[in-house]
Amino acid sequence: MRPLRLGMVGGGQGAYIGNIHRLAARLDGQWQLVAGAFDVDPERGRAFALSQGLDPARSYGTWQEMIAAEAARPDRMEAVAICTPNFTHYPIAKALIEAGFDVICEKPLTATLADAVALEQLARDSGRFVGVTYTYSGYPMVHEARVRVAAGEIGAVRTVQVEYPLEWMATAIEQQGNAQAVWRTDPVKNGRGGSIGDIGTHAYHLAGFVSGLTLDSLTADLATFVSGRALDDNAHVMLRYQGGARGLLWSSQVAIGHSNGVRLRVFGGTGSLQWYQEQPNELILTPLEGRVQVVKRGAPDLSEDAQARTRTPPGHPEGYLEAFANLYAGFAEAIRARAEGREPDAIGRNLPTAWDGLKGVAFVEAVVDSAEAADQPWLRPVAV
Amino acid sequence: MRPLRLGMVGGGQGAYIGNIHRLAARLDGQWQLVAGAFDVDPERGRAFALSQGLDPARSYGTWQEMIAAEAARPDRMEAVAICTPNFTHYPIAKALIEAGFDVICEKPLTATLADAVALEQLARDSGRFVGVTYTYSGYPMVHEARVRVAAGEIGAVRTVQVEYPLEWMATAIEQQGNAQAVWRTDPVKNGRGGSIGDIGTHAYHLAGFVSGLTLDSLTADLATFVSGRALDDNAHVMLRYQGGARGLLWSSQVAIGHSNGVRLRVFGGTGSLQWYQEQPNELILTPLEGRVQVVKRGAPDLSEDAQARTRTPPGHPEGYLEAFANLYAGFAEAIRARAEGREPDAIGRNLPTAWDGLKGVAFVEAVVDSAEAADQPWLRPVAV
Amino acid sequence: MRPLRLGMVGGGQGAYIGNIHRLAARLDGQWQLVAGAFDVDPERGRAFALSQGLDPARSYGTWQEMIAAEAARPDRMEAVAICTPNFTHYPIAKALIEAGFDVICEKPLTATLADAVALEQLARDSGRFVGVTYTYSGYPMVHEARVRVAAGEIGAVRTVQVEYPLEWMATAIEQQGNAQAVWRTDPVKNGRGGSIGDIGTHAYHLAGFVSGLTLDSLTADLATFVSGRALDDNAHVMLRYQGGARGLLWSSQVAIGHSNGVRLRVFGGTGSLQWYQEQPNELILTPLEGRVQVVKRGAPDLSEDAQARTRTPPGHPEGYLEAFANLYAGFAEAIRARAEGREPDAIGRNLPTAWDGLKGVAFVEAVVDSAEAADQPWLRPVAV
Amino acid sequence: MRPLRLGMVGGGQGAYIGNIHRLAARLDGQWQLVAGAFDVDPERGRAFALSQGLDPARSYGTWQEMIAAEAARPDRMEAVAICTPNFTHYPIAKALIEAGFDVICEKPLTATLADAVALEQLARDSGRFVGVTYTYSGYPMVHEARVRVAAGEIGAVRTVQVEYPLEWMATAIEQQGNAQAVWRTDPVKNGRGGSIGDIGTHAYHLAGFVSGLTLDSLTADLATFVSGRALDDNAHVMLRYQGGARGLLWSSQVAIGHSNGVRLRVFGGTGSLQWYQEQPNELILTPLEGRVQVVKRGAPDLSEDAQARTRTPPGHPEGYLEAFANLYAGFAEAIRARAEGREPDAIGRNLPTAWDGLKGVAFVEAVVDSAEAADQPWLRPVAV
Repeated sequence: MRPLRLGMVGGGQGAYIGNIHRLAARLDGQWQLVAGAFDVDPERGRAFALSQGLDPARSYGTWQEMIAAEAARPDRMEAVAICTPNFTHYPIAKALIEAGFDVICEKPLTATLADAVALEQLARDSGRFVGVTYTYSGYPMVHEARVRVAAGEIGAVRTVQVEYPLEWMATAIEQQGNAQAVWRTDPVKNGRGGSIGDIGTHAYHLAGFVSGLTLDSLTADLATFVSGRALDDNAHVMLRYQGGARGLLWSSQVAIGHSNGVRLRVFGGTGSLQWYQEQPNELILTPLEGRVQVVKRGAPDLSEDAQARTRTPPGHPEGYLEAFANLYAGFAEAIRARAEGREPDAIGRNLPTAWDGLKGVAFVEAVVDSAEAADQPWLRPVAV
Repeated sequence: MRPLRLGMVGGGQGAYIGNIHRLAARLDGQWQLVAGAFDVDPERGRAFALSQGLDPARSYGTWQEMIAAEAARPDRMEAVAICTPNFTHYPIAKALIEAGFDVICEKPLTATLADAVALEQLARDSGRFVGVTYTYSGYPMVHEARVRVAAGEIGAVRTVQVEYPLEWMATAIEQQGNAQAVWRTDPVKNGRGGSIGDIGTHAYHLAGFVSGLTLDSLTADLATFVSGRALDDNAHVMLRYQGGARGLLWSSQVAIGHSNGVRLRVFGGTGSLQWYQEQPNELILTPLEGRVQVVKRGAPDLSEDAQARTRTPPGHPEGYLEAFANLYAGFAEAIRARAEGREPDAIGRNLPTAWDGLKGVAFVEAVVDSAEAADQPWLRPVAV
Repeated sequence: MRPLRLGMVGGGQGAYIGNIHRLAARLDGQWQLVAGAFDVDPERGRAFALSQGLDPARSYGTWQEMIAAEAARPDRMEAVAICTPNFTHYPIAKALIEAGFDVICEKPLTATLADAVALEQLARDSGRFVGVTYTYSGYPMVHEARVRVAAGEIGAVRTVQVEYPLEWMATAIEQQGNAQAVWRTDPVKNGRGGSIGDIGTHAYHLAGFVSGLTLDSLTADLATFVSGRALDDNAHVMLRYQGGARGLLWSSQVAIGHSNGVRLRVFGGTGSLQWYQEQPNELILTPLEGRVQVVKRGAPDLSEDAQARTRTPPGHPEGYLEAFANLYAGFAEAIRARAEGREPDAIGRNLPTAWDGLKGVAFVEAVVDSAEAADQPWLRPVAV
Repeated sequence: MRPLRLGMVGGGQGAYIGNIHRLAARLDGQWQLVAGAFDVDPERGRAFALSQGLDPARSYGTWQEMIAAEAARPDRMEAVAICTPNFTHYPIAKALIEAGFDVICEKPLTATLADAVALEQLARDSGRFVGVTYTYSGYPMVHEARVRVAAGEIGAVRTVQVEYPLEWMATAIEQQGNAQAVWRTDPVKNGRGGSIGDIGTHAYHLAGFVSGLTLDSLTADLATFVSGRALDDNAHVMLRYQGGARGLLWSSQVAIGHSNGVRLRVFGGTGSLQWYQEQPNELILTPLEGRVQVVKRGAPDLSEDAQARTRTPPGHPEGYLEAFANLYAGFAEAIRARAEGREPDAIGRNLPTAWDGLKGVAFVEAVVDSAEAADQPWLRPVAV
């Protein structure tokens, strides 16, 4: 099978996520990076492209240039990864879709709800593939959890506890010039949700993905602990799902001690599941009145969904890059299956797409609206 | 030093917590059980007393009888542990205080806010000692955490995450006759708060004890997952503390996989602390831009407060009974210090008393009020 | 049931293990300390006895004095705990047995093999009870492990990995006057085995207790890493058990990072078990081709042996003192059952006695002999 | 930088390690697979090559054919990965070296000591690069450990505890046709060491790599627990290093519960380090009289050696494939540096080469010799 041809916007020198996309695309040999507009500075972007071994003719200064040139090539790129700040996702994706390219977009899908609605509509109408890199849904044991919940292994879900604590913004690093932090704390470039938009949206997607639940409503409390910061850096959200299940979501960019502490716990009527991103090869399963058990990635009794996303036997840790690569492998399979008019196989199913992206943006909007609502009642215990 | 003379109400055959009180009272040789009215059934109560080796003359059928008889003895009991269902705490404690006895009371202090207010007032006016067994504040590493937060080691507290998940009521065991569950699910005997009253109050006390924060206000969501149950068995609460810190509290009696999973995390501007009850000899400390570190019970650099509550070197696990015994040792010291007109030493300081008990009941009331409030706004994300 | 009357030799001011014995004896109300000769210095010993609330008449200056006086009392002590340095165990135990007292002796049983043989013989001939405080066999989950191995749950045992690393003697603390370290590094007072005698003997007992295996032979390597120390502070031993199973044993007093890291792993043909003293409420069980499972203390499916040694439900950590108290409760039950001419119940069975003590001393002797053997062959890989 | 051209021998359909090599080679874009003789069956091998997208002209039936054809091409492969059973390593490597190719060889280097000596000599004389895939030395935190030991952070090393337990051969899977197990239990194809040759050699290399110690001598005990198996499946080895440090090594293929449990602990005079392969992003560091600390991959204070082998920030788990990819990236750098006549940068230093391979084979030989030695003394404790 020949690799699919990938283009990239953003993700050049000094970017964190762009390199992750390239590693993930490369791991399974399903993609070949052929074109890029890697930087807002055209010169820097071209230099970076050359450093990646790209054809100088396909090392573009701007994404507009790239779209125009690639659209005209017979060996044109087939999908494009968008690794730029949030507010640019929509215009770039729109132009790509209109030029007939498939899209792989970073989360959150857009900086505003209006953009998200429009982009999701465009994706639907055009038939283009729009994958969204909700990374944690690339992990095999997250799929295993989803399959088990769906199969009723823990009974009807009662409550979901999900958290995404980080520590890297515990001080005002945006005021010291940290580029990643600068745009993430700028409401225009980032959107209205600070921690809730940047990482809360991951937690929200993960909780819904595994539990299979649909949100009914929420009430939220946002806080900004670092002085001078324009957006929330800590979010508490109480969730009510359709059907009566409840949830609690915490996202924080100021949680010292947590590098990337995504943790999900799902409690049902006959069992529970726990997954922790920093130990991602294990799923903790406890049946009612039974023992805590460790389900290991690669174990022979795992679901097809988990097995399709694993490369090594139990005990050989796979991690974040492999999860990301699973998304890329899934996107490739989805695109190929569409071209071949067939159903995708396991790795190409249950992928995060524009619809998930839109739901995430709508969630962030509701959280911010709730936190800002004038009528939010906070009860004081009787003065004792 | 002679042991203090202890009486007990409730806690007889089949009771869980009564035996814990007796073990805790005995461990350090500071108390001697001399009298008891252990059961609502006088005969069963007397039989139990004899089985404990009590003097037949002090093996009482009712607490009223015990108070009358003991009050007349020269070697009368000095303090009485109340180990009965919540709704009886107030009348028993009132009678004891009025008869001049000190009191050790199970939590929650009372079943209603009115009772709690009255009891706390009575304790204050009478000068009697009223200790409340908020067990988790007996752990040495909880004291260590409190001291470190108070000393500024993690900076100003920003957010507190506290949870108390249990699994034992995941099914309708009260409908199968489990005595412990029967009264805990009866609003009259238990009070209005189900999980929030039974265990949420522990979590709330622990969070305040360690963080040093005072609650400003809260908003809450209660759920009852087991059908036919009259009280909440799962509670989500968002907390706002005075001064701007935030908190998230979860209590659950239906969290399969959790035996007694009390966990507290406190995040400040320059560090964080984590303590987990099922591994209570360790405190996880992470300074800003530093490494995750394990502070062990018994380590030479611990505070006087922690050292006073430890009996063995690091590596020799102490647990729940030792924590409970620390409360009993502390109550003994507080009572002795009062008698001797001196300040108590370290183990007799920072004890949970009627004031803490009252704050806990007020918290539970506010949670239930919030959850029942008609104007509680739950936002729906835009229908997507 | 009235408590048994306990005497104690050694274990006075500043002693570590004496206090542990007293806490353990007190916890379950099965013992009452009535007499003591707590110190080599008679005055210090008597002062200490008074501080413990003992009758001045039973606060003895020497153990010889205590034996003589107590033997003459109608309410004489019934058993005596020996908490002195190793080399005095034999003469004290001999005198006690000859005066008709039962004995609870610290490990190792004696400082020399000859003493151990003589003491075990004396115990057998006299019918006196001689319990040895191999603490780790007091833990309920160690009993659970033993029962499961004996029931064939992991199949025929193949290999046992046991270790007991400590860090407290990583530097020459005996040269700085640490009293505990001074006698432990003195061959006369301690015996020939340094780490292997002090803690290796615990590990050896634990491995045999759980696996049910009998040692066939061994080969050992002792090292002394702290300069000027007269005995080994690190021991490596390869074990061959009767029937073909193998074992590896490591004891160390210089293993920085380990407070009291007793760990046992037993591997059989159809499963394995793991127990770690610093997390003693859990037993890790893995069946062949199955999942790693956590067996919790207090779970309803545990053996009678484990249940008899537990006081609280799962999730309420019990630890070292409770394990020690289980030994004391077991010793009381064994003594009572003998007096009543009946079989002891579960807590009074499978106790460590003089026979186990003798086996431990024989093990230490063999280890030291092996390490000192002139013909021990150490192969050099071909010089490459 | 253009990728280096890679060939591969073995590692076709159904092989475990071949796929790992291809993933690892691909991840960083430093290698391109251009040729292969993947199977002992020429037809199957060619079919597999085509499935990997190789040029049909370079999809060879035998390695001899491949060497002959590639040697004649201007775009010939530059290095060749040998992924065949042990006994074929030497003839293949010899032919490759003599034809001027660099070599990447699986461990153990060869099946016999004579072959290992000859191959190492050949590598030295020819100037060809011969890398050996001691996988665990590819992990960044293993390098971090090595650097810290070398810098004296834990003082002079006293003892090393290393183990490599596996469970996959706990039953006679070789008798049920498991291809991986069949050749590993065949002394001719595998060599004399069973578990000790297959995985003990990894443990031995890891211990020496991190500790910096050189083995002086050893004494060993081998066992075969699965009936009918021709080679050891469990090995216990006591190590004496030059300079006085000691070690204990355990390898097992029958350790139920362990998927791939490589664990290394190094204890020095002023601290200790622990690394566990199933949680490879952390290094546990304990200074003398200090706290247990977690050193995380990606932390800013890590060594250049560790940083060069990491791709993501702390909290984003990297694992086995990344470690393997680090070896491939290192081999590429070593080959390029040689070509350019310069010193390799950090990732190209401290690589496992033929010399390490030879030392591993010599170790295995000494272990087997020791275990088989007639004069190996096993002491019996006095019959008690």
